[in-house]
Amino acid sequence: MREVIVDLGPRSYPILIGAGILSAPDIVTRWLPGPQALVVTNSTVAPLYLARVRDALTGSEVRTLVLPDGEQHKTLAVMNQIITELLRHRYSRDACIFALGGGVIGDIAGFAAACYQRGIAFIQIPTTLLAQVDSSVGGKTAVNHELGKNMIGAFHQPRVVLSDTEVLATLPRRELRAGMAEMIKYGLIRDAGFFRWLEENIDRLLALNADALPHAIERCCRIKAQIVAGDETEVGARALLNFGHTFGHAMETALDYRGWLHGEAVAAGMMIAAELSVRLGRIDAGAVARIADVLRRCELPTRVAPGISALRLREFMGVDKKSRSGRLRLVLLDAIGSAALEDNASDEDVMAAISACLPETS
Amino acid sequence: MREVIVDLGPRSYPILIGAGILSAPDIVTRWLPGPQALVVTNSTVAPLYLARVRDALTGSEVRTLVLPDGEQHKTLAVMNQIITELLRHRYSRDACIFALGGGVIGDIAGFAAACYQRGIAFIQIPTTLLAQVDSSVGGKTAVNHELGKNMIGAFHQPRVVLSDTEVLATLPRRELRAGMAEMIKYGLIRDAGFFRWLEENIDRLLALNADALPHAIERCCRIKAQIVAGDETEVGARALLNFGHTFGHAMETALDYRGWLHGEAVAAGMMIAAELSVRLGRIDAGAVARIADVLRRCELPTRVAPGISALRLREFMGVDKKSRSGRLRLVLLDAIGSAALEDNASDEDVMAAISACLPETS
Repeated sequence: MREVIVDLGPRSYPILIGAGILSAPDIVTRWLPGPQALVVTNSTVAPLYLARVRDALTGSEVRTLVLPDGEQHKTLAVMNQIITELLRHRYSRDACIFALGGGVIGDIAGFAAACYQRGIAFIQIPTTLLAQVDSSVGGKTAVNHELGKNMIGAFHQPRVVLSDTEVLATLPRRELRAGMAEMIKYGLIRDAGFFRWLEENIDRLLALNADALPHAIERCCRIKAQIVAGDETEVGARALLNFGHTFGHAMETALDYRGWLHGEAVAAGMMIAAELSVRLGRIDAGAVARIADVLRRCELPTRVAPGISALRLREFMGVDKKSRSGRLRLVLLDAIGSAALEDNASDEDVMAAISACLPETS
Repeated sequence: MREVIVDLGPRSYPILIGAGILSAPDIVTRWLPGPQALVVTNSTVAPLYLARVRDALTGSEVRTLVLPDGEQHKTLAVMNQIITELLRHRYSRDACIFALGGGVIGDIAGFAAACYQRGIAFIQIPTTLLAQVDSSVGGKTAVNHELGKNMIGAFHQPRVVLSDTEVLATLPRRELRAGMAEMIKYGLIRDAGFFRWLEENIDRLLALNADALPHAIERCCRIKAQIVAGDETEVGARALLNFGHTFGHAMETALDYRGWLHGEAVAAGMMIAAELSVRLGRIDAGAVARIADVLRRCELPTRVAPGISALRLREFMGVDKKSRSGRLRLVLLDAIGSAALEDNASDEDVMAAISACLPETS
């Protein structure tokens, strides 16, 4: 079992990574603050892994709540359903929520935990690659608003993240590829060596190789843990983790959170950000070609979703949290492995970069 | 101008108390993190004081949102209206929300500030006595759920609390009396000398005496600031501030947040808690008589709201946040001026104390 510590003083916690750890009851129950637990999951994950988690929790007062699957259900109304369930069964302040699922479940169950009685414990059990390398780590929780993704949320750290790599065996290929987008992101923003490793090992990762996969997950978690430990509430460097996300979130909002997976939108968003980095003279076209190549090998999109104009995408960027005082705050590349914040990109350059990434019309 | 500091390290802030401070623009604007401000208020306060606050904010990008007045509107749905307003006008992470009103406005606007983009600044401008002495201080924000009061919320400290005692001149008498309930609470839990002072000065306070009123507000804020500084997230001593509230909240929930003001429910709740303290041999009947006397002089209720049975009240107490792991955590008195937590009151004693405070049937 691999362990990565997210070092946040009194809110520090471990990420435990390994094959089969969910089947070890002592690993799951060790973190419970009290006897009451609510496992929140979705209709896709429940038939696969809910029984395994329930079995591990024998002896506790366990209930489960199965939500519909999909980003479009990550709403305040669905979050309130979790609260209702907790209240109906009189869950107290030392109850614990388990988020068993991908990024959507982690975000909404984590936000419910942040708000219920002003904050109770929660435990992340990420079941997608994207959640294991990114969304389950760092304490960002949120639900979407029709005018913007993740606009209602909280920083609320889990007690522990339990990443069982075995569960990725049942992950749909498309979801696996979407998770690769975030892996590629870590290489791009912080670790050129890891990016090169990814270029060489993508096929092994997509084949769920038992050596390559845990290694890559651990490396991503270490990068994220290090950045989060230095800037828990994103007043500075944590924003680098949003590389590709400002464009990606705008795409997801424009699509009403349907059709594209988060990782897919991030892939296309990273291409726009790379294109803009070239325009501002930060990187050369060769770097962009490498990025496009690795995304294509993962069968990830490298262009904006069809039907969204550059102007419409730009509109939805305005409300994204990465803008401060009305100015767009973007994450650009200075090299593969090195990202920086940019507050002064002109609207013309932004529009040109988006336009360069629109789908080719036939 | 009087100043009380709430000492919470990086989240420390001052409470400024004085007549007319809202009319001093430099006092209001000094705390703004950026150019965007949203003043959230209600339909009762808006015609009285909204223009004054807007005038003080000249030069900023100010918008206002006027909510319906009343605890029954402190819901997740109304909180979402605030978020929508912020998003429609593209408010960024350095925007600021002003909560101009009583406890309901402070709670809901503060919770919106806690959640919007995972947390933006907010400033409390309490316009009721209850908010000036209690709810605006300490960072508790929340909305109600049909199954429990304040069950969805966050600890989110304001940047500053601006308590203009002049605004109390327009406060309805009933609201003024409701605020007295929280003042009496501070004396009961922490400060026998202040309780005695209240017994002697109640009539001056109810007459809004310009010396007595700011003195009493400051004293209450000092007590609360001291308790909050020692236990920001209520893992211990902060729970003492809930004296009378576990019973009071249950009453409010049973009444569907209509009919009784929060301070009125707290007054009746303090009587039940005092009654229970007698039953457990903590205080004598003479102390209860003094409490009842001072509440009656404020024309506050000393008995449970009509139509609620002891059993029904007990049911709604079970979900209140003061219970841990299913056991009721109550705040009782050991003397006037000294409160303590009690985890072991029997259900029989609790029911008997409630029954003793039911309204007399004719």
